Amino acid sequence: MTDVLDLAKRLIAAPSVTPATGAVFDALEAMLIPLGFVVHRFSRGEGAAGTDEAPVENLFAIREGGGRHLAFAGHLDVVPPGEGWASGAFEPEIRGDLLYGRGAVDMKGAIACMVAAVADIPADAGTISFIITGDEEGPALHGTRALIDFMEEAGHQPDLCLVGEPTSVNRLGDMMKIGRRGSVNMWLSAKGTQGHVAYPHLADNPIPRLVAAMADLEALRLDEGTDWFQPSNLEITDIEVGNPAHNVIPGEARARLSIRFNDLHSGASLSEKVTAICAKHQVDVNPVISGEPFLTPPGEFSAMVSAAVEAETGIAPEASTTGGTSDARFLRAVCPVIEFGLVNATMHKRDEAVAVADLAVLARVYARIARAALHN
Amino acid sequence: MTDVLDLAKRLIAAPSVTPATGAVFDALEAMLIPLGFVVHRFSRGEGAAGTDEAPVENLFAIREGGGRHLAFAGHLDVVPPGEGWASGAFEPEIRGDLLYGRGAVDMKGAIACMVAAVADIPADAGTISFIITGDEEGPALHGTRALIDFMEEAGHQPDLCLVGEPTSVNRLGDMMKIGRRGSVNMWLSAKGTQGHVAYPHLADNPIPRLVAAMADLEALRLDEGTDWFQPSNLEITDIEVGNPAHNVIPGEARARLSIRFNDLHSGASLSEKVTAICAKHQVDVNPVISGEPFLTPPGEFSAMVSAAVEAETGIAPEASTTGGTSDARFLRAVCPVIEFGLVNATMHKRDEAVAVADLAVLARVYARIARAALHN
Ligand SMILES: [Zn+2]
Ligand SMILES: [Zn+2]
Repeated sequence: MTDVLDLAKRLIAAPSVTPATGAVFDALEAMLIPLGFVVHRFSRGEGAAGTDEAPVENLFAIREGGGRHLAFAGHLDVVPPGEGWASGAFEPEIRGDLLYGRGAVDMKGAIACMVAAVADIPADAGTISFIITGDEEGPALHGTRALIDFMEEAGHQPDLCLVGEPTSVNRLGDMMKIGRRGSVNMWLSAKGTQGHVAYPHLADNPIPRLVAAMADLEALRLDEGTDWFQPSNLEITDIEVGNPAHNVIPGEARARLSIRFNDLHSGASLSEKVTAICAKHQVDVNPVISGEPFLTPPGEFSAMVSAAVEAETGIAPEASTTGGTSDARFLRAVCPVIEFGLVNATMHKRDEAVAVADLAVLARVYARIARAALHN
Repeated sequence: MTDVLDLAKRLIAAPSVTPATGAVFDALEAMLIPLGFVVHRFSRGEGAAGTDEAPVENLFAIREGGGRHLAFAGHLDVVPPGEGWASGAFEPEIRGDLLYGRGAVDMKGAIACMVAAVADIPADAGTISFIITGDEEGPALHGTRALIDFMEEAGHQPDLCLVGEPTSVNRLGDMMKIGRRGSVNMWLSAKGTQGHVAYPHLADNPIPRLVAAMADLEALRLDEGTDWFQPSNLEITDIEVGNPAHNVIPGEARARLSIRFNDLHSGASLSEKVTAICAKHQVDVNPVISGEPFLTPPGEFSAMVSAAVEAETGIAPEASTTGGTSDARFLRAVCPVIEFGLVNATMHKRDEAVAVADLAVLARVYARIARAALHN
């Protein structure tokens, strides 16, 4: 099998803090061309005037073999390394059993495994593609969404999609994601009339209305969870009045909340519910939906992934929907999506590292999934 | 009678933004010495190291005539003039019927009236004193409180005290203050554990507890008011979490409230009540009492003031306890206190002004009060 450790090192060695561009994509392209892939690269999002938005680079690579089409999806961008690394964040280094470097688990390591897996699959076994963005850790406005548009225009429609996010928790293989909760943030605002605390009849304090609205929202039980999802959860994350004068009644009060929700709700249904509660207290609501929930109900695809994992690791992965969001929230609109990847303990942290042994195992898991997916 | 307009101009012409020192006290001393007063001046509060606190100047003047002792109390400091005056804030100018200048009504004008009144009272009629601070509009830590200490040490105990705050609302004489509400500010703090909104079980959001405490406090009805006081009132004036990250559960949440309260309560009783409510929600409370309520119940002194006002203005003043606090909150501990002074419409505002005619009327009102007080 291809030297997956070498591939991982080559990807890590190209610095690629969000939005990733250039060298890291060159490195991946150089791996895929020899395997018979047609590689499309394009940038999107020139950045609105006056913002610090930069263009986002994306890569779509396809090797058409007829029959079923399996897509591997992932991202080459990484979160900033921060301070205090024992070795250079972009200088891959093996110490003991571990390969250190930013992106080792999230998720350059997994992309190396995908490449190594594909090198093991005959070109005529079926169609395989790579859906790789340079902006998953950032705003994600011009990344996977642009890739989906590109694929649709080019007429490339995968039948199944495997996302390489680091889903394993304690050891490689213990968890896959068959869904993710949706996420919506809402900004609450109550307006009143500023005045002096000694003359409250001349003022209109907006804080009591905001407090009443927040108390109603805290009392809300959105659901009891489902077979596959934990209960939806609302958290008030910020309140701001900004009134330094202790004898002044303020003229405005604001709050922000975040809801992580299962597939009993949508971003729109929750926005409507919260808006109705707040309206009773003359509190305005401005919702921003980050992602809708998705679920690939247990069935053929999850069985395929589970069998491959168990065959290589000896453990059957738990089918989970917990945690944050990922680009699977976009890919769900295209075809069934499952996420499986490395152990996430060090992701986004100082001294991010992957067990060298896990890279080889994951490459074999991905190869098994590809064979099973294309065979069917 | 002494030219009260000239006295007012001389006081206004000495700039004296809080804390007032020097020239404005020199001007008042120069008026009192010829009237037979012994003048004591002293500074207090050198300012703690590292603060911008400045020393506060105070003046206590006394003319001992035996019998009853009436004190006139007031302040020579003024709030900053701000921008946009039609003439200089510290260049007294008459335009039409009005004398313009910072302090015209609050309360250099009234102090000029006190001096003019005393000039009309024979020295053997009784004891008259002036209790004059340079820090009423500021922290008030080293002003009237220091004067009260000074008087106690010197053995000067007034029987009655008239404070010259601008209590009139629409026309001179329509209102006197026989009391003031107390004031207490409280800082609320709820502590929790910071975390990620996707993993609320690993965090402990303090906002729900703070919201529940605030909702309980908003539901509180402190009292229905008394014969002389309006109902006590609680206002939440600020809430602060300071969490910019919309996917983070914050680790701390704070709020601030202000209670203006009548004599059914004390600062301590309210602190206890709010602390007990907040304790149910694990919210800490840090109270700072600005002033206790005071009431000089209608009786001999208020009848004296009322009769003097009615004789000179033709209207009987309403006996009120409304509005903010004043240094009467300290003087109440010494003897019965009533406040009566000029029309407050322009106090603390641009183009502060007093009707020239009102100065002469108020001087006569103060002289009538002095005669009545010393006679009894
Ligand atoms: Zn990732
Ligand atoms: Zn004043």
